[in-house]
Amino acid sequence: MPRSKGDHEARRHDVSAAVWQVMATRGFAGLTLRAVAAELGATTGLLTHYFPTKQALVAYALDLLEERTLSRPRRQSGGGLAALRDAILDILPLTSEARDSNRIWVSSWDNALADPALSADYARKYAEGRDRMLQRVIAAQEAGELPPGEPTDLAAGAQAFALGLVVQALFDPAAFPPGRQTELLDNYLAGLAAGPCPISSPDPHA
Amino acid sequence: MPRSKGDHEARRHDVSAAVWQVMATRGFAGLTLRAVAAELGATTGLLTHYFPTKQALVAYALDLLEERTLSRPRRQSGGGLAALRDAILDILPLTSEARDSNRIWVSSWDNALADPALSADYARKYAEGRDRMLQRVIAAQEAGELPPGEPTDLAAGAQAFALGLVVQALFDPAAFPPGRQTELLDNYLAGLAAGPCPISSPDPHA
Repeated sequence: MPRSKGDHEARRHDVSAAVWQVMATRGFAGLTLRAVAAELGATTGLLTHYFPTKQALVAYALDLLEERTLSRPRRQSGGGLAALRDAILDILPLTSEARDSNRIWVSSWDNALADPALSADYARKYAEGRDRMLQRVIAAQEAGELPPGEPTDLAAGAQAFALGLVVQALFDPAAFPPGRQTELLDNYLAGLAAGPCPISSPDPHA
Repeated sequence: MPRSKGDHEARRHDVSAAVWQVMATRGFAGLTLRAVAAELGATTGLLTHYFPTKQALVAYALDLLEERTLSRPRRQSGGGLAALRDAILDILPLTSEARDSNRIWVSSWDNALADPALSADYARKYAEGRDRMLQRVIAAQEAGELPPGEPTDLAAGAQAFALGLVVQALFDPAAFPPGRQTELLDNYLAGLAAGPCPISSPDPHA
């Protein structure tokens, strides 16, 4: 009996889930056909049908990472500064799903930095991320929620803050539980909102 | 003729240099006996004398990374806020040496996150790094260079900023040359120094 399209889709879904699980626990360094087969309860032989080479498996994993990142739900609690806060909350490992995807992103940096084409692709992705933050910084400045100042600096700083907090939280989840991450973010944003204080000059009418 | 201690030390130095160069260009994912042998112009057989297993090579590479990180020269341009700035400048990839060591650190995160013991060791290292920043934040607050406020938040935020800027600069050195990294750091520190502005209350004597 020929396999139906539904069977094929179901199997593909299972393979994706197994690849994801292996990456979330072992990283790209631990991503092997053998590990995926064990996770799937299948033979390595079956998997070579999907992934004839290690490179094919890694390419599939990178596509899966991008697909899941793009399709994840996004917070939308407002415009301006609230939207900037949402963008950073969407990055941070505040849930187990977000922890897994961040752990896989961080894990992928080793491969990406060793491959000039992939590295350029990552640089483009991060530049796009900064640009999304930039739009929100500008909106927050226009709304008077952030002080004037070079918005590209604020956007690059916000992305640095988010990425660095991700790394710290992945290595030390006990020191950076979700509430602590959010608190640090809110303190960071409060600092941006305060900005350089107006210089208090002596009252000329005194 | 038996080999002298000097020969042994010279060979060890060459092996370290080759391991470092492989990690700087290919990362931990590309760290193999074969790659180190090629870099050294030696046989894989010779290297198995130093590294009987892949694990031994990785352990050696991690030790080398820590040793070079601990022994690197540190900036000492002052106390308080200047010392906090120095600590962050010491982290950023502002020179080719610092770029290589950062690229190797970032590359090592994949392995470290997959290994609970290594992960705990990294968490401890980053906690020590935050503690060093904390001491400098407190000194800057005491000197009146930073506003009062929870110093542990400022220290964790500063480490996040530094780590995230490292990642961005590694992927996009054209967008983050040394001068731009320093500029972003100085803007970040200026924001911290400004802090929450004093609330201007109506003059009760008006």
